[in-house]
Amino acid sequence: MNVDIGNALGTTPGLTEDTLERLDGRVADAHERITAGMVDDEFGYASLNLPETADPDAIRAAVAPFDDPHAVLTVGIGGSALGAATLAYALESDVDAYFLDNVDPDHVRALLADLPLEDVVVNVVSRSGTTAETLANFLVVREAMTDAGVDWTERTLVTTGEAGNLRRLAEDHDLPALDVPEGVPGRFSVLSTVGLAVATLQGHDIEAVLAGGRDGMDALSGSLFESPAYAYGATTYALAERGALTNAVMPYAESLETFAEWFAQLWAESLGKDGLGQTPARALGATDQHSQLQLYRAGPPDKLVTLVRPTERATTPIPETELEGLAYLGGSSLGDLLDAEFDATEASLAAAGVPNLRVEIDRVDERNLGELLYGMEAACVLYGELASVSTFTQPAVEWGKNAARGLLGGGEFAEAEAVDDKRELRVESR
Amino acid sequence: MNVDIGNALGTTPGLTEDTLERLDGRVADAHERITAGMVDDEFGYASLNLPETADPDAIRAAVAPFDDPHAVLTVGIGGSALGAATLAYALESDVDAYFLDNVDPDHVRALLADLPLEDVVVNVVSRSGTTAETLANFLVVREAMTDAGVDWTERTLVTTGEAGNLRRLAEDHDLPALDVPEGVPGRFSVLSTVGLAVATLQGHDIEAVLAGGRDGMDALSGSLFESPAYAYGATTYALAERGALTNAVMPYAESLETFAEWFAQLWAESLGKDGLGQTPARALGATDQHSQLQLYRAGPPDKLVTLVRPTERATTPIPETELEGLAYLGGSSLGDLLDAEFDATEASLAAAGVPNLRVEIDRVDERNLGELLYGMEAACVLYGELASVSTFTQPAVEWGKNAARGLLGGGEFAEAEAVDDKRELRVESR
Repeated sequence: MNVDIGNALGTTPGLTEDTLERLDGRVADAHERITAGMVDDEFGYASLNLPETADPDAIRAAVAPFDDPHAVLTVGIGGSALGAATLAYALESDVDAYFLDNVDPDHVRALLADLPLEDVVVNVVSRSGTTAETLANFLVVREAMTDAGVDWTERTLVTTGEAGNLRRLAEDHDLPALDVPEGVPGRFSVLSTVGLAVATLQGHDIEAVLAGGRDGMDALSGSLFESPAYAYGATTYALAERGALTNAVMPYAESLETFAEWFAQLWAESLGKDGLGQTPARALGATDQHSQLQLYRAGPPDKLVTLVRPTERATTPIPETELEGLAYLGGSSLGDLLDAEFDATEASLAAAGVPNLRVEIDRVDERNLGELLYGMEAACVLYGELASVSTFTQPAVEWGKNAARGLLGGGEFAEAEAVDDKRELRVESR
Repeated sequence: MNVDIGNALGTTPGLTEDTLERLDGRVADAHERITAGMVDDEFGYASLNLPETADPDAIRAAVAPFDDPHAVLTVGIGGSALGAATLAYALESDVDAYFLDNVDPDHVRALLADLPLEDVVVNVVSRSGTTAETLANFLVVREAMTDAGVDWTERTLVTTGEAGNLRRLAEDHDLPALDVPEGVPGRFSVLSTVGLAVATLQGHDIEAVLAGGRDGMDALSGSLFESPAYAYGATTYALAERGALTNAVMPYAESLETFAEWFAQLWAESLGKDGLGQTPARALGATDQHSQLQLYRAGPPDKLVTLVRPTERATTPIPETELEGLAYLGGSSLGDLLDAEFDATEASLAAAGVPNLRVEIDRVDERNLGELLYGMEAACVLYGELASVSTFTQPAVEWGKNAARGLLGGGEFAEAEAVDDKRELRVESR
């Protein structure tokens, strides 16, 4: 992974090299704090040790009973699904991966009607074993398997904490079970059992993913000028301080579309607290050049744009054409076109004074993905240190969970009472 | 469609009923301007006449030659794809719809390898007939059809303007062709040939979509307190003026996920200009409660959240369970759970003083979608009037197109030279 922050200099908001040099002292201090947290395996910081602490053998052993599945259906929400989904959508496989990360009745029904349940591995993921959406979906899926004559105990993998409903379920029915790692919030768990079990079932090389993570680990250092992850984290932080409250993340690769969603969770849930934070806006190049670019270039100067791309792509030549005015496309390739669009967007933003950062990996494969995901986690942790926020907690998410649980009669939760305070000003169609 | 703006009162940023009453005079003036534009079929305003001017018979006639296709592959980008995609993803059909709206070589190759090209209708959409991404993709698709022994002239539908490459192609090969409507920017074209041809091929009732559009048209009036679309447009505008520069659009229905993307284009490309505009952030309920909600509730007070839902859903009961602590879920349904999550999020935001708007439709079907899409277009046009921006143009998008074209050797474009101004400050992994 490499990061080019040149187009954050002299923009609005923008930085100077002097600013960055002054900030670099704080980066050194933050790196020291991060390193100490890693050494002690402190809560949250432990995430950055995963490339060394994750156990690929345990993951392979847990999935070994599921011989040659047709598909993997992950039942999980938020960090329990997004890391695995990021790898699944980025890498091609003959084993399809599906994710039930919402409780939409229409969607669940349609998906279950389509899936050959006898050939599917169900991968249910919840640290606590009480996540309402995940457990509700699992109950529905389990019943659908039984209705289809499938023995669910033969087709279910559980990833959960040491205790709780799912752990007991695994013990009672002798299900293969993986441990959610200690000290690792869901949004930082992609390089653990939570993210890698699906990748293993899909036949991907998880050792290479972890090796990429180690590349990212090795690239951390006490200076933003020497560490791509810290260059990204420090620059986004400094831009946010100066008013770039939106970070539009725009990969130029369809395979990285879910990466942008994963990033959005990481960034929003880790840094959005105490009145601080930066809103991740998910975009996709080149598609969104025909849409969001208008706003990024000419709207309020409250943003930065993160352009992400692999430098190697498949070669898909554009055929020569008889069509007038399009001759220039013939002999070129779709990759050339996409890269020209990338350059055009970058220049377009720079010419309008909109800060933009370039993040590049060599290609979309296991190793480079591991490095990219690790790098963004480290960038996020650095940003959190610089902003002095509690990077690894999510009190506002817990608030909403309690309110929903109270509304459903799952206990007494004061949060549920806030629903009665709703102010109405309703305008209806006649 | 109905809109509840009660939770935008007394928040941060926030409004009072007095503010809204004072604003209502400007809404009346803007409505007069909009009505005049519609009467004269002026550029842009003509979009709001589509429920009456679109010709479903012409669309049915154009697609009639394609008997019972297996799938429809739309080749188009931005507004040429998103409207059709919104309907396709919202409504169930036995005819699959695919969209090539990007020039990613890996993605294009993978998609073409999977599709049974002999049973696919290719729907190529570009007003100008010169859009580089669309034409490049079409050339690749056409070659793939030929390579597969398929006569592409028998399987291609063209939707384009009166002149240009695609029009000539249609004439030369006697292809079924539809007209892109005059005076309608791509992002406002869902209720025209551009959005409805795919829906027709998928067997949807496009008369009902247009009837829903007429419902939306009938609901416009000179007061925000009487028109749901204007209530939405005026409130979002007034909140943006007061600092809500991000609008997080969060449908509580998987089927409306693409609607959020369509909305994002409409909002960003129409209103993001002259230093004004509001960044649409796409989210999905309940999934993003486990992610973005942290930021929305506890981050910078620069946002509003738009919660969208159908009030009727499929019934998917949650089975009774032996799992301790989850008994409360049994006997409930996934829909109940999703609605409880909706209420919890709304209350969570309100309790934290974050403005939020509720947009509801009765159910996700043709008629309600037509009304929703029309309503959001009218809301956007009203916002544009109130902000005095040029709602129907997109100069920054054109800038990027010219730059890309120049880079590819498709002509002399001054914009391409900006690429040479790139400032580098590159940080690499060791």
